[in-house]
Amino acid sequence: MTNKPLILVTNDDGISAPGIHVLAQEMKAFGRVLVVAPDKPQSAMGHAITIHDHLRLNKVEMMEGVEAWSCSGTPVDCVKLAVYRLLKGERPAVLVSGVNHGSNISINVLYSGTMSAAVEGAMEGIQSVGFSLMDHSIEARFQHVRPIIRGVVANVLEKGLARGTCLNVNIPRESDGPLKGVRVCRQAWGYWEDDFEARTDPMGKEYYWLRGRFKDMDQGEDTDVWAVNNGYVSVVPVQFDMTAHHTIADLNTWDHAR
Amino acid sequence: MTNKPLILVTNDDGISAPGIHVLAQEMKAFGRVLVVAPDKPQSAMGHAITIHDHLRLNKVEMMEGVEAWSCSGTPVDCVKLAVYRLLKGERPAVLVSGVNHGSNISINVLYSGTMSAAVEGAMEGIQSVGFSLMDHSIEARFQHVRPIIRGVVANVLEKGLARGTCLNVNIPRESDGPLKGVRVCRQAWGYWEDDFEARTDPMGKEYYWLRGRFKDMDQGEDTDVWAVNNGYVSVVPVQFDMTAHHTIADLNTWDHAR
Repeated sequence: MTNKPLILVTNDDGISAPGIHVLAQEMKAFGRVLVVAPDKPQSAMGHAITIHDHLRLNKVEMMEGVEAWSCSGTPVDCVKLAVYRLLKGERPAVLVSGVNHGSNISINVLYSGTMSAAVEGAMEGIQSVGFSLMDHSIEARFQHVRPIIRGVVANVLEKGLARGTCLNVNIPRESDGPLKGVRVCRQAWGYWEDDFEARTDPMGKEYYWLRGRFKDMDQGEDTDVWAVNNGYVSVVPVQFDMTAHHTIADLNTWDHAR
Repeated sequence: MTNKPLILVTNDDGISAPGIHVLAQEMKAFGRVLVVAPDKPQSAMGHAITIHDHLRLNKVEMMEGVEAWSCSGTPVDCVKLAVYRLLKGERPAVLVSGVNHGSNISINVLYSGTMSAAVEGAMEGIQSVGFSLMDHSIEARFQHVRPIIRGVVANVLEKGLARGTCLNVNIPRESDGPLKGVRVCRQAWGYWEDDFEARTDPMGKEYYWLRGRFKDMDQGEDTDVWAVNNGYVSVVPVQFDMTAHHTIADLNTWDHAR
């Protein structure tokens, strides 16, 4: 039993979200499953870690054959606590994050707690994959997602990911029709055109709610946005080296001594 | 007066940190200055944004000739509120973030609120630079940092940054000796070996404080870690395209239909 691979499971929607239950269930076929996930929704927490407060871990019942802990911190805190506190030396064979309720295509990889947990896994030298379903609903249907999860994780365990990289997998909704296949993509160029809704509190003071509209600025057919909008599962390899290597030569022509 | 360039200033240590006052002072020579910064420390918040709570903005006195607002949210929230709520259409000529009390070299670019604000600026199409001083102390000395800030911002305004990129500037401590110069670098390969200090609360329940030791895994002399450890200012161009383009060909050989 103990020589079955160890699979670490986390997410950002919190330990009671349906998506992480689907993921934990599917991982049972691959090995021993350890779930460490936030005790409350932590969407859009990016790569935040908790340094100004302490952290709590609570063992919880999740499903048969799965060890599960809820954590008071962010998704990245969950990965760190799993690796450095709960596991103490044993390395997970793979880390899976999700299944996120909502897409993490394009630049949303940077805002996403789901993907930041996978990126943290990559930093720790663990093969990591984030899964996201293009459906924010708590009632989202995951049946068509299951074979995708199994296929990607089987490939990762068999072939391995390049050092310093993880995968960002986004899956169209079931109601969008049968999946056409899987496409390896690059992150689309886009941005959020934000808009703050101003409201007035009972004391007469203004406050704001963030709202935004994603603007796809990319014409390419090799992007994650194109793939999911055309019925494909997108798989983007993500790296945590953020250096814009292609600009170094030009920056070296600057007069830095001015 | 109004055709002087507009400079947006933010940070993650909060609006009362000494570092942002240095930055705002220096920016007055370049144009009109708008400061929007967190009302409390927001270090290590990464690219987090606030979607489960509302946001507040409060106009505050900072220094003569500077319009300043404190914000209840994260550094990235500050950038979004500045661009989409306060400015409504006018684009800053440059966004500067910092001066951070503490370094943001290597993978700390991902954890850093200072750098995430600069990355958000780049996403919004604004030329952006994050400045960090290798000194966590609130008593840190910034005199040697001032000419670096002026030089980098003058270059950015004059030459411009490549689309989709910003700069991560790290500056050694004054007490480490005279600066040897400026080096354009890549982000060093490293990771945090974490360690959680367990304590017991008065109810007898365990809680944890995150601690860690940064492990430099890079032998290169072209990295930011090497530069600052050898008396140079490091300038790393940072991009928000996190695609590991070099792995796409290999991933396309996988059997994704399994």
